[in-house]
Amino acid sequence: MSSYWGKNFKLTVFGESHSRGIGGVIDDLPAGISVNMEAIERMLARRATGMSAITTARKEPDKPEILSGVFNGKTTGTPLAFVIYNSDQHSADYSELAETARPGHADYSGFVRYGGYNDYRGGGHFSGRLTAPLVFAGALAEVWLESRGVYAAARIKSIGGIEDEGPSLSDLGPDEIAALKAKPFPTLSDEKGKRMYELAMAAKSDLDSVGGVIECSLNGLPAGLGDPIFGAFESRLAELLFAVPAVKGLEFGAGFGFAAMRGSEANDEFYMDGPLVRTRTNNNGGINGGITNSMPVVFRVAVKPTPSISKPQKTVNFRTGDDRELVVKGRHDACIVPRAVPVIEGCAALCAMDFLLGGKKIND
Amino acid sequence: MSSYWGKNFKLTVFGESHSRGIGGVIDDLPAGISVNMEAIERMLARRATGMSAITTARKEPDKPEILSGVFNGKTTGTPLAFVIYNSDQHSADYSELAETARPGHADYSGFVRYGGYNDYRGGGHFSGRLTAPLVFAGALAEVWLESRGVYAAARIKSIGGIEDEGPSLSDLGPDEIAALKAKPFPTLSDEKGKRMYELAMAAKSDLDSVGGVIECSLNGLPAGLGDPIFGAFESRLAELLFAVPAVKGLEFGAGFGFAAMRGSEANDEFYMDGPLVRTRTNNNGGINGGITNSMPVVFRVAVKPTPSISKPQKTVNFRTGDDRELVVKGRHDACIVPRAVPVIEGCAALCAMDFLLGGKKIND
Amino acid sequence: MSSYWGKNFKLTVFGESHSRGIGGVIDDLPAGISVNMEAIERMLARRATGMSAITTARKEPDKPEILSGVFNGKTTGTPLAFVIYNSDQHSADYSELAETARPGHADYSGFVRYGGYNDYRGGGHFSGRLTAPLVFAGALAEVWLESRGVYAAARIKSIGGIEDEGPSLSDLGPDEIAALKAKPFPTLSDEKGKRMYELAMAAKSDLDSVGGVIECSLNGLPAGLGDPIFGAFESRLAELLFAVPAVKGLEFGAGFGFAAMRGSEANDEFYMDGPLVRTRTNNNGGINGGITNSMPVVFRVAVKPTPSISKPQKTVNFRTGDDRELVVKGRHDACIVPRAVPVIEGCAALCAMDFLLGGKKIND
Amino acid sequence: MSSYWGKNFKLTVFGESHSRGIGGVIDDLPAGISVNMEAIERMLARRATGMSAITTARKEPDKPEILSGVFNGKTTGTPLAFVIYNSDQHSADYSELAETARPGHADYSGFVRYGGYNDYRGGGHFSGRLTAPLVFAGALAEVWLESRGVYAAARIKSIGGIEDEGPSLSDLGPDEIAALKAKPFPTLSDEKGKRMYELAMAAKSDLDSVGGVIECSLNGLPAGLGDPIFGAFESRLAELLFAVPAVKGLEFGAGFGFAAMRGSEANDEFYMDGPLVRTRTNNNGGINGGITNSMPVVFRVAVKPTPSISKPQKTVNFRTGDDRELVVKGRHDACIVPRAVPVIEGCAALCAMDFLLGGKKIND
Repeated sequence: MSSYWGKNFKLTVFGESHSRGIGGVIDDLPAGISVNMEAIERMLARRATGMSAITTARKEPDKPEILSGVFNGKTTGTPLAFVIYNSDQHSADYSELAETARPGHADYSGFVRYGGYNDYRGGGHFSGRLTAPLVFAGALAEVWLESRGVYAAARIKSIGGIEDEGPSLSDLGPDEIAALKAKPFPTLSDEKGKRMYELAMAAKSDLDSVGGVIECSLNGLPAGLGDPIFGAFESRLAELLFAVPAVKGLEFGAGFGFAAMRGSEANDEFYMDGPLVRTRTNNNGGINGGITNSMPVVFRVAVKPTPSISKPQKTVNFRTGDDRELVVKGRHDACIVPRAVPVIEGCAALCAMDFLLGGKKIND
Repeated sequence: MSSYWGKNFKLTVFGESHSRGIGGVIDDLPAGISVNMEAIERMLARRATGMSAITTARKEPDKPEILSGVFNGKTTGTPLAFVIYNSDQHSADYSELAETARPGHADYSGFVRYGGYNDYRGGGHFSGRLTAPLVFAGALAEVWLESRGVYAAARIKSIGGIEDEGPSLSDLGPDEIAALKAKPFPTLSDEKGKRMYELAMAAKSDLDSVGGVIECSLNGLPAGLGDPIFGAFESRLAELLFAVPAVKGLEFGAGFGFAAMRGSEANDEFYMDGPLVRTRTNNNGGINGGITNSMPVVFRVAVKPTPSISKPQKTVNFRTGDDRELVVKGRHDACIVPRAVPVIEGCAALCAMDFLLGGKKIND
Repeated sequence: MSSYWGKNFKLTVFGESHSRGIGGVIDDLPAGISVNMEAIERMLARRATGMSAITTARKEPDKPEILSGVFNGKTTGTPLAFVIYNSDQHSADYSELAETARPGHADYSGFVRYGGYNDYRGGGHFSGRLTAPLVFAGALAEVWLESRGVYAAARIKSIGGIEDEGPSLSDLGPDEIAALKAKPFPTLSDEKGKRMYELAMAAKSDLDSVGGVIECSLNGLPAGLGDPIFGAFESRLAELLFAVPAVKGLEFGAGFGFAAMRGSEANDEFYMDGPLVRTRTNNNGGINGGITNSMPVVFRVAVKPTPSISKPQKTVNFRTGDDRELVVKGRHDACIVPRAVPVIEGCAALCAMDFLLGGKKIND
Repeated sequence: MSSYWGKNFKLTVFGESHSRGIGGVIDDLPAGISVNMEAIERMLARRATGMSAITTARKEPDKPEILSGVFNGKTTGTPLAFVIYNSDQHSADYSELAETARPGHADYSGFVRYGGYNDYRGGGHFSGRLTAPLVFAGALAEVWLESRGVYAAARIKSIGGIEDEGPSLSDLGPDEIAALKAKPFPTLSDEKGKRMYELAMAAKSDLDSVGGVIECSLNGLPAGLGDPIFGAFESRLAELLFAVPAVKGLEFGAGFGFAAMRGSEANDEFYMDGPLVRTRTNNNGGINGGITNSMPVVFRVAVKPTPSISKPQKTVNFRTGDDRELVVKGRHDACIVPRAVPVIEGCAALCAMDFLLGGKKIND
């Protein structure tokens, strides 16, 4: 299914950049879950502003409206539908997008897929705006997880080759995670964050953009989550993460680093931590055989540079076959990575919640 | 769903290493597809032997039996069920696996997930043997794709840090791809392959193992395949690839390399190749916005070192909580990468076939 | 999945009687389908008014708003989301519904299912209002089907034991079907319709209600639609029809009448109608082995009497366990059957469209 | 999906009458469920013999083989695959079925659906034999349910117009239900059963067949099972029941009888039975608003007469378009109803188990 994700609940996302609204439906949620609108709006604000939080006046966050499924502040157990109206669409002339293949964008592939019927204004269904419904759902999941002692921590791991430093995300406590979430530029090292920021600003002044890596850790997850073969924890999370525009790579634990390791290095030795089974290292990123093993689930995603750049680029008009030179107009994020952090974090939370809702599948 | 994959057909995989058999059911296949048992057995043989093809007498390949869904050599359109019987199970005492957490393995996470009821003999449902049904289905998909001009080419990209060289997989023609598939150690550079092999043998003599990277290219795919948001081409393929044991990372096109790029470098410029829209570079790995863009789909997976090593390792008995020192007995692959190549290639073929079967979703 | 229906598209329905709105999302629709808002509103009006069309001033029909997925009057191929805002909720005190089990209603079963968190105001998610999104989607499907020569015709077959008369629905042409749809009380015999109406009015004056049977025929469907075993045409349609409140029975063709037939009577003999294979009788209701056979698909559903009656009834307070005597207040439909006709017809259209969108599953 | 049923587990059914075997895969079952092969074979025997149990030597029951998913007599939590090999296929010439439309059968509709590629021998995938995997799964579900105090009771309600008599199925205790299951002709009144049997024998001697009605009651189900809108208890059960060949009608509780009732008659008044909420009548068949209400779930299915009759029938050759006169050869069941009883009962059990496995969906 194209627009559904989840097994123990189902999340649907709808909308286009210039349609009446964007939003989602979450079905099969248990009844009685608290819907904390303040937490949801706070997380939406993190996605909405990104680096602009540093450089410009804070933009109004997206304001979601609940259409159904919430009563007295709690889920009813029937579909929770919500919408974020698209209010300030510019009356710009978007007709160029109907036929010009912006490099790195989905104009051409979308044209073929939808036969030219798709809404191309502002990127349509491919717009980064469509991650807002993911964040809505992710915020709901995060609040729920935190009440169970599970925390999703995410940071900018690198931008343009500059690496963050500091402790492991897996070692952060709830307060440190909260502090990280509050940063407009969420790195553990403020010094490194500053350098990343400067590098992004330099790209901007060159009419260019930069990519990066986001790291996330799910702390406090119990062992036993995952449904091999095709419902491996990695599989379900991967399905979700690759739905996020600009994500082009994903690795768990040591990830691609495994390729140069020997088994004796790569294997995580088990030990007893009081009554708990733990591993001394966490190269497997908290997952063995597709199932969580009690260690934090740690993963990283590669985020490509924003394809919207103001430098002139060569391309074609895919309706006529003519060559074109293109300058993408408008204000663009020189680096989408900071705004993607709450999206990735929300995806991790959604995946963890989905598995936890499945309960223990053991016949007692 | 745990054990189902696919949208336009559904593949189910069942079995345990020591159960009566392993196999699968493929539902919703169109009627009239040729089932080429010779091609299927040839691909199963590639998975079954791996490096042993070089070093030891060739093992008998797995012999699948069709239970239903094939009539006069073609699919009937009703479920195609097949089984590979587990014939030569050793009567070894596997009881240790019921309570000892082999580092890097799913003994402990599986114990928690299945409450101790899972069949631990020979790794049970976590056994690499479970990839044989994937290969069966993948071989069926490859034959179907090839009759439509689509080819899946895969190679060992690196082992233990040694990188393959040579042309791009995307540039290989059908005959070159066939030649690559025929290699027991499928690298493009035989010289590099030899060095990788020696490195794996060295690890083996150290009672150790090594990891690597597999690269795959789907050549000849039309533009327009992919169902954003959650049915992005990357999402569906990722779901499948992370179901393969030992896969811990996945990247499309430039993948993690994007993190250090600028947009002007990363964007693939479009041009007209006669009547066809193409891109000059393929950093996006043939996919924009989750939809194929007419260029080859190129991806790489990270494969961790075989966790079964003969070196002594520290671990615990997870039933009693006692410390244990473990030496994994038996013959192990020092490097699983060569055997994983047809599995990864099969996954790519399955994903391509699934999307192609969806047809054009345009109302005419 | 609780709130999803369809295989080749997915329909989600959300909302509660007193939530901000009710609506739906239709995913995986092909791009380029015309969305005829006038036809949709006309069909919604048929559901909204029912018998009141005869007796009272015509109530304003529900006015749907498209949130996404439609551009220039056609589907974009991405999720079509729509909402019907709940405008005129009465500020009545509904707290009684939170604890009183109205006989024939879901107050008690819903209380147990949702743990008391469900929105009980106006029946909440169980309200007949929730059929409006079904009708929206059904209207879209009907317009699409008609452009392909497929027509859904439905009528009141009986109310309170009075049977309609006249020709078979399967023999009606497009104009006759259009005329039937335009009737506020859609029977083929106006005389019988008048008697049914009087019987319903008599029940009303007794503070009571009556049930009935609705018959529907899908004319013009090609042979070959249906996916046995579990995707039989009957199975998919049944799943949908039993989602409609008050439907408690379903039969295809001769249905329960088969129980007293002999095979020689029941079997439909085939003959050639020019180049077409047809059957002389249609006891099987156009379906053999779960697959359409070129004859009209004919089915009937049993609709129970509206449980909301003004007669005093004995019941309990399910929170306290106390006995209660209940008089359901407010204006109720003495007979829901006329308003259910477009709902049933819409369900039939949705099912036909879903199968037709699946295309021919034959490998050519 | 064509060949999958279930939400909290997934049942797949595969096979053709003359393929190597028929069988199924049950995925997502909890680990640790007892697999009672004796109970499974006993129930398979009920399906296999039917009336022949009375008239002929008892045929060997189908012997299933477990391929995977069971270890030490209990489910492992990974897919349970089983097969029943097709052993005694007659070498008869079935080529006639490849082109002759037997009235009441799926030869023609299947030919169109599968493009002539389907295995027509012995009815192929449409064969009644395909209900054996349903019974296998149903037997597993029944044993599981009984350990939780839930019992599925089914009987022949009528054959050829002769109605069974006796107490309500809902009032039967476990021992009475066991006794009913042990009858080769499961009616409550042996006298009525005898008359039905004679009527079937009379049809047989006329080279004809008869239809009937099966009634089933699920006793002991808790309130709160059902996921409106589309996952109503009735919807899920209907989907399954209409997958059973020859089922052409389904009604819950008063069913079609509602059509002639008034609301005051139809509504089931609630009362307290000690601490339990119950209803005095059960016209709603244990379901309100798609959710169980603590009363037994009671339903009836209409079973059409076996279409295979030895009387000459007129039909066509659908490949050539020629007229044909047909005499269906071989031994046929003059009445399939007795053999369908365990199938219907098994479906009811599967549905109840699926919902019960879903657990309470309330956030505590």
